[in-house]
Amino acid sequence: MSHFLKKWTELSEVKEELASRDWFFGTSGNLSIKVSNTPLQFLVSSSGKDKRKITSEDFLLVDELGNAVESTGLKPSAETLLHLEVYRKTNAGCSLHVHTVDNNVISELYGDYGEIRFRGQEIIKAFGIWEEDAEVSIPIIRNHADIPALADEFSQYIDGDAGAVLIRNHGITVWGRNAFEAKKHLEAWEFLFSYQLKLLSVKNLVQPKISI
Amino acid sequence: MSHFLKKWTELSEVKEELASRDWFFGTSGNLSIKVSNTPLQFLVSSSGKDKRKITSEDFLLVDELGNAVESTGLKPSAETLLHLEVYRKTNAGCSLHVHTVDNNVISELYGDYGEIRFRGQEIIKAFGIWEEDAEVSIPIIRNHADIPALADEFSQYIDGDAGAVLIRNHGITVWGRNAFEAKKHLEAWEFLFSYQLKLLSVKNLVQPKISI
Amino acid sequence: MSHFLKKWTELSEVKEELASRDWFFGTSGNLSIKVSNTPLQFLVSSSGKDKRKITSEDFLLVDELGNAVESTGLKPSAETLLHLEVYRKTNAGCSLHVHTVDNNVISELYGDYGEIRFRGQEIIKAFGIWEEDAEVSIPIIRNHADIPALADEFSQYIDGDAGAVLIRNHGITVWGRNAFEAKKHLEAWEFLFSYQLKLLSVKNLVQPKISI
Amino acid sequence: MSHFLKKWTELSEVKEELASRDWFFGTSGNLSIKVSNTPLQFLVSSSGKDKRKITSEDFLLVDELGNAVESTGLKPSAETLLHLEVYRKTNAGCSLHVHTVDNNVISELYGDYGEIRFRGQEIIKAFGIWEEDAEVSIPIIRNHADIPALADEFSQYIDGDAGAVLIRNHGITVWGRNAFEAKKHLEAWEFLFSYQLKLLSVKNLVQPKISI
Repeated sequence: MSHFLKKWTELSEVKEELASRDWFFGTSGNLSIKVSNTPLQFLVSSSGKDKRKITSEDFLLVDELGNAVESTGLKPSAETLLHLEVYRKTNAGCSLHVHTVDNNVISELYGDYGEIRFRGQEIIKAFGIWEEDAEVSIPIIRNHADIPALADEFSQYIDGDAGAVLIRNHGITVWGRNAFEAKKHLEAWEFLFSYQLKLLSVKNLVQPKISI
Repeated sequence: MSHFLKKWTELSEVKEELASRDWFFGTSGNLSIKVSNTPLQFLVSSSGKDKRKITSEDFLLVDELGNAVESTGLKPSAETLLHLEVYRKTNAGCSLHVHTVDNNVISELYGDYGEIRFRGQEIIKAFGIWEEDAEVSIPIIRNHADIPALADEFSQYIDGDAGAVLIRNHGITVWGRNAFEAKKHLEAWEFLFSYQLKLLSVKNLVQPKISI
Repeated sequence: MSHFLKKWTELSEVKEELASRDWFFGTSGNLSIKVSNTPLQFLVSSSGKDKRKITSEDFLLVDELGNAVESTGLKPSAETLLHLEVYRKTNAGCSLHVHTVDNNVISELYGDYGEIRFRGQEIIKAFGIWEEDAEVSIPIIRNHADIPALADEFSQYIDGDAGAVLIRNHGITVWGRNAFEAKKHLEAWEFLFSYQLKLLSVKNLVQPKISI
Repeated sequence: MSHFLKKWTELSEVKEELASRDWFFGTSGNLSIKVSNTPLQFLVSSSGKDKRKITSEDFLLVDELGNAVESTGLKPSAETLLHLEVYRKTNAGCSLHVHTVDNNVISELYGDYGEIRFRGQEIIKAFGIWEEDAEVSIPIIRNHADIPALADEFSQYIDGDAGAVLIRNHGITVWGRNAFEAKKHLEAWEFLFSYQLKLLSVKNLVQPKISI
C-alpha cells in the first residue's frame, strides 16, 4: 500500500505541474506510472477528468490487458493501450501524453518528413547524450482515430526504456524509467519544439544594420 | 440552498481558473450557470467586477427576463441577454464568455468568411466527436454595440445543448450542459485558435535543409 | 491610519498581480496611489525594489514635491515626478507604470507616428466608451533620460482623470480615478497591444484554401 | 550557520522564482551563491535535480576547486567550473545560468556576430547605466561540450563584478554582486531578448493605412 501510495503521489505531482502549464486543455492527455512488474499493473488517468483538479478519482489501477484491477465506476483513458505498449516492450516506469499547441504545430509542419531532428542544442543532454553536436530525432506518426491501430503504429517506435513519439495533430507521448525521467524528457522535447517554432518565425528577419 | 451553493461554487471555480489565465482583462467577459428550470433562474456575473478577485458579489441570481431575483445593488452583466438566449433555446446548464487575444485575432482574420473550420485535429474529440478527420466549425458574427441586436444575431447560431459562437473583435461564447462541458469546449476552441495562429506564422518558413 | 492602510493594501494588491505577470522585470516599473488631496500625499514605489516580494518597504508616502513625508532610508522611485504630474493636473487616484515586452515593441513600431489608434474592438468598452466602432488612441512620446524633461513632455498628454501614455522603448503609464480603474485601463491597453502584434504577425498569411 | 542559512534561502528563493517561469526545463540550468571569500566557498546546484521542487538537497557547498566541502552523496552541477571562474576573477556574490527558449533563439540568430547589442532601451538602466541612448552588448560564445574548454572561453568574458555571457544554443550565465543584482540583470537581458524576437517578427509588417 505504501508503494502504491508513493506511485500515486509521484504521478499526481507530475499531473499537477503539467496541468499548471495548461498542457491538458479540453481534458486531453493522460499519464501512467507502473506499480508492479509481475503481474504488470499500472496507474493510468481516468477517462474524461479535468486535470486541473486533484481528486481520488484521477487514476485507476489497470492490469496487463488495460482493464481495471478492482471493480470501479471509473474508466481507464481511451488511450491506455499506448501506455500498455510501453510497459510491455520496455522497462519504462512512467509514460506521459500531452497535447500542447507547440507539439501539435511541429507535428503538422514536419509530419510529411516522418520525424524532426535537432542537432547541437545543449538541452539534448537532458536525454542523457553528452557528445558535442549530438543529434536527436523524434518520429511523427499518423493519428489513427482507431486506438488499436494507433497503438500498433506507435508500438513500432518503442525501442528503449526512455523514448518519445509525436502523433500528428494530436500530441506527444514520452516515457522513461521513472516519472522524473519521463518529465525531464518531455520538457526537453517541448523546449526544442518551442525553440524551433520561434527560430523559424524570425530567422530570415535579422537585419544586422538595424539590430546589431 | 445547498443546490444554490453548489452551483455558485462550480461557477466560481471556473471563473478563478479562467481568471488565472488572464482571460478577463479589463473586467471583460462574463459567466453564468443555471440554477433552476422552472422557473428559469441562473447565476450570472455582476457587471464590472475584477474577476481576479473572489467575492460574494461576483454573481447574482436572475430570472427568465434577466432581472435580479432579489433586490440587490448589483447589476447583472450587460451581456446577460446572450446567456438568456442560451437557456431559453437549449438545455445548456452553463455559458462562458471570454475575450482572449487569440480568439480576437482569429475572429478578425476569418471574420469575412463568417466562420473558421478545423479538420483532423485530435482535440476535436473534446467536442464529443470521435470520427477520423472530423470537421468542426464555429460561426463568427458581427459585434453589434447594441446588446439586443447582438443577442438576436447570436441566437440564430444556438442549435444544441453545447455550442460556441465567436463575436468579431469581441470574444467567444461557449455553452454546455454543465460547467465541466462548457469549460472543456472553451479550452478546445482556444487550443485550436492558438494552433492556427502559430501554424500560420511559421508554415511557409520550414526549410528542410536547415532544420531537418 | 485605517485610510492609509486601505490605500496601501489596494496598491499592494495591484503590485502583486502585475508582478505575477512579470510586468516588473529588472526592478522596472513603479506604482502610486493618492492618500490625501489637501495636502497632496501619495504612496509611491520605493526605488529599486524587487516587486515580486511583498514587504513593508515597498512604498513610501511622499508630498506635493515628491519628497518623503517622514524621515526614511527609502528613496521614492526616480519616476515619482510623472506620478506627481498626474495628481497635480487631474483628480486621478492611482497611477501605474509598467514595462512589458509588448508595450515596448508597440512603442517602437508606432513611435514615429506619435500614437497608435484602435477602432472597433470590444475591449474599448473598458475605457468607458460604449459607441459602436469607437476609436481610441494613445500617444507615444520620446524617452528622455532626464526625468524632469520626460515629466514635462508626459505632462502635455495628461488631460483627464483617466488616461495613458506610452513612452518609446520604455513602458506605459496609466492613471485612473482609483486603483481598480487604473488596472482596468492598463489591462485593456495591454490586450490591444498584444492583439495588434499577433494580428500583424499573421494577417498576410491566411490561406483560405488550406485553413478554411 | 545563520550566514550559511541566509545564503541558502536567498538562492532558494531565486531558484523558486525562476523555476516558476519554466526557466529550468529538463533539469537544465544551475545557480550559485558565495558563502565565504577566504576560503572561497559557495553553494551550487546539485546535479540533475528537478528545480520545481524545493528540497534540502538542492544545493551543496563547494570549495575553490569546485569540490564538495563535506562528504556527501550529492554531485555539484557539471557546470560548477563556470561559477568558479566568476568567483575567482571578480567580487561577484551570485551567478545564475538558465536556458530559456528566447535566449537560445537569440544566441543562434546572432551567434555568428559573436554578440548582440541593444541601444536606447529604458530597461538598460537595470544594468546601472543611466545615460540616454546607452548601448549594452552581451558576448555569444561557442558551446563546447567539454566543460573545461567552455569555462576557458567563458572566462575571457568575465571582466566585472556583474556581467553576462550567452552560450550558443545553450543559455545565459549572469552574475552580480549579490542574488538581487544577478536576478535583476538576468531579467533585463531576458526582457531585451524577448523584445528583439517580437520586434523582428513584426517590424516589416506595419501597414499604416490599416492599423493606424
